[in-house]
Amino acid sequence: MSSDPAPAIAVSTVIFGLRAIERSEHVVLSLPLVKRVREPYLGRWALPGGPLAATESLREAARRNLRATTGLDPKHLEQLYTFGAVERSPVDRVVSIVYWALVRTDEADRARIGENVRWFAADALPQLAFDHDEIVGWALKRLRNKVEYTRIAHALLADEFTLADLREVHEAILGRRLDPANFRRRIEATGTVEATGRHLEGGRHRPPALYRSTAQKELLL
Amino acid sequence: MSSDPAPAIAVSTVIFGLRAIERSEHVVLSLPLVKRVREPYLGRWALPGGPLAATESLREAARRNLRATTGLDPKHLEQLYTFGAVERSPVDRVVSIVYWALVRTDEADRARIGENVRWFAADALPQLAFDHDEIVGWALKRLRNKVEYTRIAHALLADEFTLADLREVHEAILGRRLDPANFRRRIEATGTVEATGRHLEGGRHRPPALYRSTAQKELLL
Repeated sequence: MSSDPAPAIAVSTVIFGLRAIERSEHVVLSLPLVKRVREPYLGRWALPGGPLAATESLREAARRNLRATTGLDPKHLEQLYTFGAVERSPVDRVVSIVYWALVRTDEADRARIGENVRWFAADALPQLAFDHDEIVGWALKRLRNKVEYTRIAHALLADEFTLADLREVHEAILGRRLDPANFRRRIEATGTVEATGRHLEGGRHRPPALYRSTAQKELLL
Repeated sequence: MSSDPAPAIAVSTVIFGLRAIERSEHVVLSLPLVKRVREPYLGRWALPGGPLAATESLREAARRNLRATTGLDPKHLEQLYTFGAVERSPVDRVVSIVYWALVRTDEADRARIGENVRWFAADALPQLAFDHDEIVGWALKRLRNKVEYTRIAHALLADEFTLADLREVHEAILGRRLDPANFRRRIEATGTVEATGRHLEGGRHRPPALYRSTAQKELLL
């Protein structure tokens, strides 16, 4: 034990959303970052976050971050991990409890981005403040694991979606193209989606079928 | 925000081990608990834990708990979750970062149990202090999930084991008997164990084959 001051608690949030790229038909896995306006790491980009207030739960603190940064209140919000290395902040000892959120594509487009906040593509981040590069790495790993064995991709889509929409989410998260026929077979085998009987509106000869999640909230694991 | 004092940080540990039951050939999933010697919850059983010292990492604090409670330094130690509900302690606001450990059967038998410490069967716990019932519930769920899709059961065994030993670990964790032939088939299909070429010593006509993990440390997920 030591007589140093007690470690402080912060709550930070990794917010994933899919954003359209200019001059491209693809969407890209992205996250909003906040530019630091004070030392340490003045001017560097960092995850949204701040101290835990005495009267709010960890999840409430994460929701407050989310609203302050993006104006959004996403359904999918999950605790990621708690980071507490002794030297992770150059000033005071801070233990950060990190949550991660998934923002639906339509929500991400509507997000009211605050001052000093900008969306970055997950595969083209600047060097972040503190150990936030490591934290984003953890969150990406968790998201990529989960997209393979849970229904989590549905959280990034509207209630009804085409299989092409769903494949695009998987592709953006995994960072690689997937074969459409194999993808369709694999998804149909999981039983995680069902046809709504409706089709995408528009003038096409064979409009794609619309699907929905067979369980909106419950994940496989 | 509020002017209440900042929340304090504690690190607690759920330590799982397999312990033999008297007058039985079976082992039982068990965990050591500490009897509280002060308020709140004086006299109740609780998870081993305590405040995070300013100069130790979260993992170091968990290891310190483990050594103080059992004298052991188990290989498998993993962060479980951080519990921070506002009212979880009746006195001060405490955020608890919880680790869970797996203690090998031979280690659990050797454990130097401290004063006011006792092993309890996981399925016959007394009502615990604070929200520790909920925490143990989380840890059990995580352990049971992991035993199905990772090599984690190996962490409870010596380096070489029979398939009956491995099945006994799965049975103790899942709390139900498993069919030996089905179990053998399933385990062999996963490729997580390999025969050592050696057999269990003893006077038996057909001594069982000894296996080892194909990857001592890396888990499937």
